[in-house]
Amino acid sequence: MSGLPLPLRKLTEHFASLPGIGKKTAQRLAFYLLDMPEEQAKSFADSILEAKKAIHNCKVCQNFTDKEICDICASPDRTDKIICVVEDPKDVQAFERLQEYKGQYHVLHGLISPLDGVGPEHIKIKELLQRLQTTEVDEVIMATNPTIEGEATAMYISRLLKPLQIRVSRLAFGIPVGGELEYADNVTLNKALENRMTM
Amino acid sequence: MSGLPLPLRKLTEHFASLPGIGKKTAQRLAFYLLDMPEEQAKSFADSILEAKKAIHNCKVCQNFTDKEICDICASPDRTDKIICVVEDPKDVQAFERLQEYKGQYHVLHGLISPLDGVGPEHIKIKELLQRLQTTEVDEVIMATNPTIEGEATAMYISRLLKPLQIRVSRLAFGIPVGGELEYADNVTLNKALENRMTM
Repeated sequence: MSGLPLPLRKLTEHFASLPGIGKKTAQRLAFYLLDMPEEQAKSFADSILEAKKAIHNCKVCQNFTDKEICDICASPDRTDKIICVVEDPKDVQAFERLQEYKGQYHVLHGLISPLDGVGPEHIKIKELLQRLQTTEVDEVIMATNPTIEGEATAMYISRLLKPLQIRVSRLAFGIPVGGELEYADNVTLNKALENRMTM
Repeated sequence: MSGLPLPLRKLTEHFASLPGIGKKTAQRLAFYLLDMPEEQAKSFADSILEAKKAIHNCKVCQNFTDKEICDICASPDRTDKIICVVEDPKDVQAFERLQEYKGQYHVLHGLISPLDGVGPEHIKIKELLQRLQTTEVDEVIMATNPTIEGEATAMYISRLLKPLQIRVSRLAFGIPVGGELEYADNVTLNKALENRMTM
């Protein structure tokens, strides 16, 4: 990247800071952006600022939303009796693609990971407990990824919920262990949802 | 992407409009950006606007620069006697990585491609001719990609330059035909530069 004018180098570095974007791709994207019509590039920049400003966590489920309560929580067509607990907003998208699940979600925004310094207090577990105290819920589905952190977080929450006498279930094995929920195909994800087991 | 709040959907669409970024990657990047510290996201957006505003074509070689005349054209350590003609600014970067070539460049910003409606008047050929009339040049190296359009553009320019009695050379074969100059490894690119032939 040496020899590039500074503003171009900065733009390239910003692209390279994104996950999965290497130096060469970052440069490609930066050059592409320079070739874009002025309007389109401005609109790109605005969309970043706008998204950062408008998007926050839903008061109820902690998913990303631009409203106070997100569309899923506010939907009259869904049952509040089942809450599916996921690691992050991408996982909600994965379930919504199924068009099968009609319960609610709770987004943890992370997993318990002592090695990375992430304890239970750093993710949205407190908010889940508060929610369960004010709403009547029949079942909590632990839908964290089948990784060490995902399993540990599921176990931790399931123990916390024991006294509340709520059924806590876990997605069925079927998702390849060590894999990422986000990339599961619909059939596998559906199967895992169907065969969920009481923890 | 259905179900995503509008500002998030817009951001995702902007990412997806970039080359080589699919829908799923675009969504990943958008979510990543939302998780960034406010400052960093703002700086990303600013870098787009800043690059668009500050970067334009060098008056001499048409490469991207934030000055009137780019650093390469202004360098006292380089000879003005040789001009290497490339398709776009990425190709200049490829040559500069060699740290071998000490001549100047001329960036065409495209290739002649009648099927895409790109004629000689749409790329920076006129600027090359003007340049050759005001500067004394010994050799013009045609370093367009070895594709149909790249070859055609090289042929076209070489014929235009015939009356000027300037040596016109072409990068040696060595770069895999149909490949992209940008991705050539240094050895291949060096070989191609060394074995350039008079057209």
